[in-house]
Amino acid sequence: MPLVTLSIDAGHSRSEKQQLADAVYEALRAAIQIPENDRFVAIREHAAGDLIADPGYLGVALSEHPIFVEITMRRGRPTEKKQALYREIAQRMASTGLVRPEDVLIVLHENETADWSFGNGVAQYVETEMKQASQKQDKP
Amino acid sequence: MPLVTLSIDAGHSRSEKQQLADAVYEALRAAIQIPENDRFVAIREHAAGDLIADPGYLGVALSEHPIFVEITMRRGRPTEKKQALYREIAQRMASTGLVRPEDVLIVLHENETADWSFGNGVAQYVETEMKQASQKQDKP
Amino acid sequence: MPLVTLSIDAGHSRSEKQQLADAVYEALRAAIQIPENDRFVAIREHAAGDLIADPGYLGVALSEHPIFVEITMRRGRPTEKKQALYREIAQRMASTGLVRPEDVLIVLHENETADWSFGNGVAQYVETEMKQASQKQDKP
Repeated sequence: MPLVTLSIDAGHSRSEKQQLADAVYEALRAAIQIPENDRFVAIREHAAGDLIADPGYLGVALSEHPIFVEITMRRGRPTEKKQALYREIAQRMASTGLVRPEDVLIVLHENETADWSFGNGVAQYVETEMKQASQKQDKP
Repeated sequence: MPLVTLSIDAGHSRSEKQQLADAVYEALRAAIQIPENDRFVAIREHAAGDLIADPGYLGVALSEHPIFVEITMRRGRPTEKKQALYREIAQRMASTGLVRPEDVLIVLHENETADWSFGNGVAQYVETEMKQASQKQDKP
Repeated sequence: MPLVTLSIDAGHSRSEKQQLADAVYEALRAAIQIPENDRFVAIREHAAGDLIADPGYLGVALSEHPIFVEITMRRGRPTEKKQALYREIAQRMASTGLVRPEDVLIVLHENETADWSFGNGVAQYVETEMKQASQKQDKP
């Protein structure tokens, strides 16, 4: 479910982009236990200078090559899980050697179960919840 | 009001992009009755491979050419309306022959009446609501 | 904190893009008093025709060259502040001579304190709030 948007400078190779996307996926797996194969990413390339991050805000030494990681997911993860997620993302992205940990900006957007369709025009999460609820009712 | 973001592979013609945008607009008209002319779309092109969707998640056979449809709109549509919207979008987009229904991923983002300005620096929805409230009060 | 996404036509110079980004930053400073240096912007360029805004919706005469300004920030600004923000953004962007005020579409997305990491994998706002809460408790 999480939909990840990676905003990066243009000029990365296919393999480098894959490494960055994989780092976020592995971090989501480790920190908030998303299911295997729950991998949806849009990589957006930007001309030099089109990603602007102030180099001094809150004392973090951002450079002129930040990466913005935006993640949309369903509401309800506790703060500790989100903190673990940030640690995992920054560490795993930095491990690729393609970005400094200081340059990884992360923003979460939360929505609801009904706000997702994974193909075929179906609201899969809604259908799953309805099925589970009806199975519960069927039990004696 | 809905602001639609279409994330697609680069290489579509102007006419093809227009067809895809029109399909979403017509689906919004049919399923959730947005007003005529309420058409705001950003089409974002991606290099091959920059839109990543796992081909097996929830059993949907996504290909390597998914389209991500993100829609921001005001909070409050019931789940049934959202389900109708997904059906309409997938069906109408697939009818263009440019995308398989399996490859249409849809994510909704909801916000509030005060979160919109349609030009001129004015919060048009807020002003309309205030006018309606004051007209109600004026009535004997 | 606000994360600003500017969706514009391709073809603007570096200096023009900087002017547009600066206009939004100055508007945020003036209208909702964000801290100095709180400047995070992604500028996304679009091929001609890929930003679609209906020219008649709500009576605003939008052209074929709109700019979409999306701002993600923490929840809670009152409506009056948002209205002031729209006025400031449209006026300051129009002052650059690069866009008509009618063509400035603004959409806000709100999230929470825990939804931000400004580098290094740290949830800076969460840590600041925890520190403030603990200092309060320490007082006699």
